[in-house]
Amino acid sequence: MEQLSVRDIHHVIAAARSFREISARSIKKVPTLRGKTIVNLFFEPSTRTRTSFEIAAKRMSADTFNIAASTSSATKGETLIDTARNIEAMNPDIIIIRHSCSGAPQLLARHIGASIINAGDGAHEHPSQGLLDIMTILDHKQDLAGLKIAIIGDIAHSRVAVSDILGFTKLGATVCVAGPATFIPAAVDQLGARVCGSVDEAIEDADVVMALRIQKERQNDPLIPSLREYSICYGINRRRLAKAKPDVLVMHPGPINRGVELSPDVADGPSSVILQQVNNGVAVRMALLYLVMGGEKSGDAQGDI
Amino acid sequence: MEQLSVRDIHHVIAAARSFREISARSIKKVPTLRGKTIVNLFFEPSTRTRTSFEIAAKRMSADTFNIAASTSSATKGETLIDTARNIEAMNPDIIIIRHSCSGAPQLLARHIGASIINAGDGAHEHPSQGLLDIMTILDHKQDLAGLKIAIIGDIAHSRVAVSDILGFTKLGATVCVAGPATFIPAAVDQLGARVCGSVDEAIEDADVVMALRIQKERQNDPLIPSLREYSICYGINRRRLAKAKPDVLVMHPGPINRGVELSPDVADGPSSVILQQVNNGVAVRMALLYLVMGGEKSGDAQGDI
Amino acid sequence: MEQLSVRDIHHVIAAARSFREISARSIKKVPTLRGKTIVNLFFEPSTRTRTSFEIAAKRMSADTFNIAASTSSATKGETLIDTARNIEAMNPDIIIIRHSCSGAPQLLARHIGASIINAGDGAHEHPSQGLLDIMTILDHKQDLAGLKIAIIGDIAHSRVAVSDILGFTKLGATVCVAGPATFIPAAVDQLGARVCGSVDEAIEDADVVMALRIQKERQNDPLIPSLREYSICYGINRRRLAKAKPDVLVMHPGPINRGVELSPDVADGPSSVILQQVNNGVAVRMALLYLVMGGEKSGDAQGDI
Repeated sequence: MEQLSVRDIHHVIAAARSFREISARSIKKVPTLRGKTIVNLFFEPSTRTRTSFEIAAKRMSADTFNIAASTSSATKGETLIDTARNIEAMNPDIIIIRHSCSGAPQLLARHIGASIINAGDGAHEHPSQGLLDIMTILDHKQDLAGLKIAIIGDIAHSRVAVSDILGFTKLGATVCVAGPATFIPAAVDQLGARVCGSVDEAIEDADVVMALRIQKERQNDPLIPSLREYSICYGINRRRLAKAKPDVLVMHPGPINRGVELSPDVADGPSSVILQQVNNGVAVRMALLYLVMGGEKSGDAQGDI
Repeated sequence: MEQLSVRDIHHVIAAARSFREISARSIKKVPTLRGKTIVNLFFEPSTRTRTSFEIAAKRMSADTFNIAASTSSATKGETLIDTARNIEAMNPDIIIIRHSCSGAPQLLARHIGASIINAGDGAHEHPSQGLLDIMTILDHKQDLAGLKIAIIGDIAHSRVAVSDILGFTKLGATVCVAGPATFIPAAVDQLGARVCGSVDEAIEDADVVMALRIQKERQNDPLIPSLREYSICYGINRRRLAKAKPDVLVMHPGPINRGVELSPDVADGPSSVILQQVNNGVAVRMALLYLVMGGEKSGDAQGDI
Repeated sequence: MEQLSVRDIHHVIAAARSFREISARSIKKVPTLRGKTIVNLFFEPSTRTRTSFEIAAKRMSADTFNIAASTSSATKGETLIDTARNIEAMNPDIIIIRHSCSGAPQLLARHIGASIINAGDGAHEHPSQGLLDIMTILDHKQDLAGLKIAIIGDIAHSRVAVSDILGFTKLGATVCVAGPATFIPAAVDQLGARVCGSVDEAIEDADVVMALRIQKERQNDPLIPSLREYSICYGINRRRLAKAKPDVLVMHPGPINRGVELSPDVADGPSSVILQQVNNGVAVRMALLYLVMGGEKSGDAQGDI
């Protein structure tokens, strides 16, 4: 998201809207990427993002291959670049990579010829999530410029937060973050976000409230609030949401811990656009695959993102 | 199976026979479900049923996605309905679900719009298995009415047994069950089956003998016979099978514990139709996918099962 | 590889070259196996070989199914033949099998009707690897006759070594093996290889140096050198490689333990053809699938390999 210009972002979203419209006309499959080989190279487990990319690829008639590269097998002496070069030698057109190290996709892109798409790298970025979040907001708001967007929760460990903050602020929104002190990194203001002292302050008059997922795996850390504490102090419930604008959008990258980040009535309420996020995810990923393969220019041209 | 009428059952089997005939003419692939998206959402491990559904889907040119949703990830705070809604937001046409809780497919069908197929729910039902079992019997017998069908083994924990008893009795067969006392639930007669005091009594003059799989995982339970005891007291061997009708069919939902539920000579003998069951499984699942998508009415219509 | 004649080997490689040429003309997909069902039945974990076969199958428009049959589930009482017969009952055209027992593919081929391809059986053979290694050498050398080929490392546990030695010697090469004494089986000379007292002796004037992968899992065995010792005594570095012919080819079946079997400058150096091996792997597997399905004779004929 850091490298994308405002024009790039709008370009991806325009393409995603076309693909969404085609799907809505129950034309579920287009021949755009027929004969193309797309590899999902996931070094971290993922059902949601991987399935979303896989559905996007198959809707465009590409052949997909899932490689669940456990970190353990990767530490069997073979480096990330070796693994990727071996996959490249099988001639894929696109490698979609998720890796626990920040910068892994950039490293690959420098060393191998196939197009690389970042499906999440460490605590760095998750750009396709950022793009689908922007697309979802633009389905309801004319423009991001001037909007107040609150991002609540574990900012420190969230690549979604990074891509969202970068994208939202690029398009002119004001991003306010709030959460437990241990979850708010000192450097977050350098990304362009404003740190609020409380959730209520962040939510006040917000146009969008994005709740981030709590990693329950971190619950052993004594500096981290329990789920119960979290729910009380940082969970978004109807009472808290009443401070936001009346037409506020409630978002969550999923999967939700019901009753923790969001109360069930908020998660399923009229402000929630969470399932639209998932739906837009497939469309955004179709657009990314399309554009990275050369997009309108030519079906054979190689692209980079 | 409980909800299907006799007419429904014959309708599915007639469609399955057409698909089997098409496959036999080495036309392995039909375009019936081209562009359709089918998700295998399996909360319990399964190779056999999942592969059978996947082959059925691909033979009809659908795109398939396997989601192995471990119960652990499902308990990460996301409910079954959340998981399914998220998958639904990716616009699949059919979700095939296996879940350890009885009623999970019905619950989904009430909450989401995609067509749901039950691939096994807890100890409740396994309707596609029941249908393929009926299809296999009807390949050899004119009619189920008047047949005596013995089901031997762990009735209590078997969803196959439930779907088989419901289906067989609907079509007019008499079903006799036998097995270790701890494996015979008190309520089995309410399903329409007759409990026999011994395997020999159940098998006597039977037209069909269905042996169920023993779950070796349960072998630590002191109330459960050892494999050796089971084989001696409840295993189907040639001597025991001699009491059945001469043209008896031997069936098993697989995978067989050789030498436990069936002696090898019976499993591979002339009465065994076990591999026909597997073969018919693909045809029945093609029929289910076809009918659930609207069948002959229209290729685009939505259906429910 | 043991059963293939010299003519067979050249036949496969000629077909593989055609497929590679077609792919190079960016025709990524041919309709050769449209409607065919190919099952990857892997009883041992494998990413590389399985993916290579899967890409080969999809490039020929076949439908592929991955069945990861853990040995544990196979020991649930179902025999290998039962498992395969069940898969066969679903009507696949080809079963590609990897199994920890030598001879498993031959056993299957005797008992079931579908075509079987051996993707590695125990410490016995890995014929598709042997064929891709021959293809890679023939890309650079006129002929294997008269070449000196050194194979360095764990010969005793390597099915790659067996298939390579059998194939290379069939085509007239002299194969010299070297490695830790515990890794050199007494019977290796019966395969047609010459045992050398040192790596330097094996490499001297070699036209090809094939380094085998060390199984780090075996590092607890006190009779086995540490990775550090291995690297010093048996690793191929630039100094050692200088003893080989100037146009030597450096090969490795992958994945490489960098700095153990090969120094990084050798692995990435001008003599290395390791990525060509991977690339040729897809072409060889396309050829095998094509020929096993009847090849040029007829698209419907059944074949065996």
